[in-house]
Amino acid sequence: MSINQDFQEKAINTIRFLSVDGVQTANSGHPGLPMGAAALAFALFTRHLKHNPANPQWVDRDRFVLSGGHGSMLLYSLLHLTGYDLPLEELKNFRQWGSKTPGHPEYGLTPGIETTTGPLGQGFATAVGMAIAEAHLAAVFNQKNQKIVDHYTYAIVTDGDLMEGISGEAASLAGHLKLGKLIYLYDSNKISIEGSTDLAFTDNTQMRFEAYGWHVIKLADGNDVEAIDAAIQTAKADDRPSLIICPTIIGYGLPTLAGSKEAHGAPPGKAERDAAKQAANWPLEPHFYIPEDVLAFYRQALDKGAKAEREWSDKFAAYAANYPDLAGEFSRRMQGQFPSDWDADLPAFPTDMAKGVATRNASGKVLNEFANRLPEVIGGSADLTGSTKTWIDGSPAFQADSPEGRNFHWGVREFAMSAAVNGMNLHGGVIGYGASFVVFSDYARSAIRTAALAHIPSIFVFTHDSIGLGEDGPTHQPVEHLPALRAMPNLYVVRPADANEVTEAWKFALRNRHKPTFFLLSRQNLPVFDRSVCGSAEGLSRGAYVLKDFGESEPSLILMASGSEVGIAWEAAEQLAAEGHSVRVVSFPCWKAFEDQSQDYKNQVLPPHITKRVVVEAAIPMGWERYAGEESRIIAMPGFGASAPFEVLYEQFGISADNVIAKAKELLQ
Amino acid sequence: MSINQDFQEKAINTIRFLSVDGVQTANSGHPGLPMGAAALAFALFTRHLKHNPANPQWVDRDRFVLSGGHGSMLLYSLLHLTGYDLPLEELKNFRQWGSKTPGHPEYGLTPGIETTTGPLGQGFATAVGMAIAEAHLAAVFNQKNQKIVDHYTYAIVTDGDLMEGISGEAASLAGHLKLGKLIYLYDSNKISIEGSTDLAFTDNTQMRFEAYGWHVIKLADGNDVEAIDAAIQTAKADDRPSLIICPTIIGYGLPTLAGSKEAHGAPPGKAERDAAKQAANWPLEPHFYIPEDVLAFYRQALDKGAKAEREWSDKFAAYAANYPDLAGEFSRRMQGQFPSDWDADLPAFPTDMAKGVATRNASGKVLNEFANRLPEVIGGSADLTGSTKTWIDGSPAFQADSPEGRNFHWGVREFAMSAAVNGMNLHGGVIGYGASFVVFSDYARSAIRTAALAHIPSIFVFTHDSIGLGEDGPTHQPVEHLPALRAMPNLYVVRPADANEVTEAWKFALRNRHKPTFFLLSRQNLPVFDRSVCGSAEGLSRGAYVLKDFGESEPSLILMASGSEVGIAWEAAEQLAAEGHSVRVVSFPCWKAFEDQSQDYKNQVLPPHITKRVVVEAAIPMGWERYAGEESRIIAMPGFGASAPFEVLYEQFGISADNVIAKAKELLQ
Repeated sequence: MSINQDFQEKAINTIRFLSVDGVQTANSGHPGLPMGAAALAFALFTRHLKHNPANPQWVDRDRFVLSGGHGSMLLYSLLHLTGYDLPLEELKNFRQWGSKTPGHPEYGLTPGIETTTGPLGQGFATAVGMAIAEAHLAAVFNQKNQKIVDHYTYAIVTDGDLMEGISGEAASLAGHLKLGKLIYLYDSNKISIEGSTDLAFTDNTQMRFEAYGWHVIKLADGNDVEAIDAAIQTAKADDRPSLIICPTIIGYGLPTLAGSKEAHGAPPGKAERDAAKQAANWPLEPHFYIPEDVLAFYRQALDKGAKAEREWSDKFAAYAANYPDLAGEFSRRMQGQFPSDWDADLPAFPTDMAKGVATRNASGKVLNEFANRLPEVIGGSADLTGSTKTWIDGSPAFQADSPEGRNFHWGVREFAMSAAVNGMNLHGGVIGYGASFVVFSDYARSAIRTAALAHIPSIFVFTHDSIGLGEDGPTHQPVEHLPALRAMPNLYVVRPADANEVTEAWKFALRNRHKPTFFLLSRQNLPVFDRSVCGSAEGLSRGAYVLKDFGESEPSLILMASGSEVGIAWEAAEQLAAEGHSVRVVSFPCWKAFEDQSQDYKNQVLPPHITKRVVVEAAIPMGWERYAGEESRIIAMPGFGASAPFEVLYEQFGISADNVIAKAKELLQ
Repeated sequence: MSINQDFQEKAINTIRFLSVDGVQTANSGHPGLPMGAAALAFALFTRHLKHNPANPQWVDRDRFVLSGGHGSMLLYSLLHLTGYDLPLEELKNFRQWGSKTPGHPEYGLTPGIETTTGPLGQGFATAVGMAIAEAHLAAVFNQKNQKIVDHYTYAIVTDGDLMEGISGEAASLAGHLKLGKLIYLYDSNKISIEGSTDLAFTDNTQMRFEAYGWHVIKLADGNDVEAIDAAIQTAKADDRPSLIICPTIIGYGLPTLAGSKEAHGAPPGKAERDAAKQAANWPLEPHFYIPEDVLAFYRQALDKGAKAEREWSDKFAAYAANYPDLAGEFSRRMQGQFPSDWDADLPAFPTDMAKGVATRNASGKVLNEFANRLPEVIGGSADLTGSTKTWIDGSPAFQADSPEGRNFHWGVREFAMSAAVNGMNLHGGVIGYGASFVVFSDYARSAIRTAALAHIPSIFVFTHDSIGLGEDGPTHQPVEHLPALRAMPNLYVVRPADANEVTEAWKFALRNRHKPTFFLLSRQNLPVFDRSVCGSAEGLSRGAYVLKDFGESEPSLILMASGSEVGIAWEAAEQLAAEGHSVRVVSFPCWKAFEDQSQDYKNQVLPPHITKRVVVEAAIPMGWERYAGEESRIIAMPGFGASAPFEVLYEQFGISADNVIAKAKELLQ
């Protein structure tokens, strides 16, 4: 259906007025972005975006991320208009309890939302991860003339997004990787919350992005649909990521507020809204008015989408005829299913109490074992591959000229890495992981949070997990990170005690397809326990388990520890048993997994009548009281660490078998 | 003393070999940067840096930050050579327990170290804060022809620093602010840990920094002292911040490792070290060899420094004669002293149980009250000034053309803001604060950590502290941040219950000159308690205090809460008392301050015999068990929040007086 200028303006105004009605009705929200960027979104959604609103899961759809998530009404309006399962009633319930239209887009709640965007800048980086997944899958599965993976990743990004450091990291990475199918529309309204961006942000954005290796197009007017359309066409033809700078007017159409910071984040007021409608010849009522012809126009997306998906399905059927194995593998991966024997007959690490194995080294081996079985496992490290042991052998690096590579050089960019890993996992078809040192997880914390909030199964492989890293000193020694990560809802924080627990940790993380997992792994060697005389490492999946009861009779005391301190507890228990005490050692790698267990299981591991308990962990002790109870001792870090060989640090900070024994005896007396 | 080329090379090699000897002796550390960047540091320290090694506290010294803190031996070598109180013995004890030469520079431990640099990128941003403080103090105190504040801020920055997003934020800010006295030497060795920077980092750095508004000079050879010298001269004359790109060779001088990633972060081995010494005609022994003439040359810094400080003192004396008040004020501020009446007669907020006052609003008033009394208080928000209430009335914004301004538009750059605030406080003469929403503190977490580790008294004013922010939804609702921040050593996390506690919170933070403070303030109104019938808000400084005992007899139950939930506890206690129960309400704004108290005080507030206790807090409950004990109920958030008006959220999540009453009755029965 070809349309004239007036009708087009009416269609764009429908987005604007749905948005402002949503905000005004909620008496809360952000009208500025949806009204200012409506034409961008219109051009993208009606002329370019390949999607099927009836099937938001269609694997070869274009991905779209609204990086300025506060402009959510823009997206909700478009999702409703183009026919997603988002009734008008939901738009009327914007920002209300139980609605599908929260203040910021939340993944999993609303059909068509590709990600929980998180705070500013993160959507930018998450979409880079989506484009990476597309490029990788295309390289792995597409065959000459049979492209089953062939879509774009779009985002609308804002001034605020471009001020955040993470967008710089992600842009540098995307430019380096030449992600040509990444196309960002920059809603350049030059207003942020405090006023003109001239107050704080006077970069030459075009030059900056060209310096990152991007293709930059600067438009004269962000309301010029033809120009936006043409720019997107040009962008599609370029093999670099594209930034289309679109000068817009925040709150476009609001008679007194447009172009000002007052249009950004508050309801304009009924009078201002009504004046805007009048100026646009829009009926004042009903609110949430959608002209029938406009709805019919947008709803063409359903037919177009169905046709596009059908064409793709035909293409896929032809592909499957030629490449049945590849097609089966592609379907399996996109559905997130594993081969039935993916975790069968895993090799065990031999007992080694003397020299031991660093859990980071064990992780390197286990990762490679699973990577062999699951080609969808891809990832890398933020410039610490050798230290984090996260290289997949036998595969090249993912680079512009080798997108089939499964290893990523993320650069010293922990935050963009973590957000991109989220984007990869959201895209599907791959299981993405990112790696660094635990202390640097602070840089990435908000992306880890987004994974937790949005139930994204990202795997964060973080090593050098305590004072055990030694000489690098307190700047590099995580002490508070373990409790701080445990505080995050939905995040499985796993600190394995030995090499065989590492195997179980990876199994747990890979199986855990609806929540992220964060590993804390040791730099230093840890004993590999003799599993023939103690509990199976499979206990890891239950969060805590009885590693071993030492002594002749029923235990009168429980020693609890995670990671590198389990060996210390073991050593202490041996000595206490030699002195006639009966002591239980509980390996406690994951609080949240333990909380998931039945009360019955919990009582088996921590029998309520055994009230004497000692915890030992090389971290700030916050929260252990809930498992230790009142008749307990908690041996932990008193504060930040220090620079010295790790054995000296353990001794100086009293994280030692001797100290455990002393504290246990205080309780046993 | 004029020197020839050979002598100069010998002096530079002294740095290189001290560094490699330090690393090899410790059998741990990073030889690559010190050896590669020795000539940069030489040019800077011997030809430009204004400092007095005998008095590292001299207020008008140039500041120098080694942003790649892993190259610490470079700095330790120079500090020893130029005559700081850092004996050679300390260099021999590099990375050992109790030494002053930890793996990464730690502020407060080693004379001449201007900051704990933190992970990569942070030193870059911290130094921006130092330059801001200098520019501000110069604007406030300097008089025509009498410049008592007139120094440069230098840094050596690395490839890794420039990959981190925070350096992009800080560079954009510095360019915008035209911090002309900021001069960075970029140690561009094109090697990071995984190999060539070509693997992940192919920005056009010159173009990128020009886009930020920087003055960029690209040298041909980072070992060319004359060229570096000339570039620094040119940089000094430019009114923009300067980046001098110095192509270097990592591990310069190591015969087989130079120029490779293997030179970066591990001891080269004795053979390689010895071969390097032989190639440079350096004696193999003794280790840590310093030629006498070289030492004499570097130690000229003492005379030069003494002379420079003396000249400054003379200048200051002349200034003091002309401007005695200003001189007194300058001295007071640089010494970090307050006028004796700085906290006298503070206005109280009137009781208001009905409508109440949001603690963010109270904070805005209190900040202005203190800002009136203490002109050194300066700061601002990451594009949320209006929401965080952090504008100082009557002062302009700090901008390139108004450096006397006390208000900062940090832009949407929480991390660079927080690191810059650290830099401002490290510089001295100002008390810097930064502000944003609590949930965005994740972006800044590592800078908050650096403040905690380095005992920097930064003040972090974070608002919208819980589900109480309402409709913006779970992406914006901090739930785990309160426990996660409490887990950080040295950080005072303060969540005031009402407006008068806010006054005390600011007083506490301002008085607390050796540790950072982090405020969590409410968006929503909170009752202002009637202090004539309850405990004084001064109790805040002790972390927890008895707000009020409700009922006729000795309390049989304690209700504990922080921030917005104290009003809920109060309401519950009133009702319980009306039903004949006697109940204590404890306001618990700061765990760490409570831990600082005597056991006696703790027992007064939480008498051990009152074992029935209910905690209510709109956050993840981690850690409260230590104060609640086993006969308790903890009412808290079960996970992430939701998008709805805040009253609905409190009701739905059970953070309510009714629920407190119900739980209290369970215990009282």
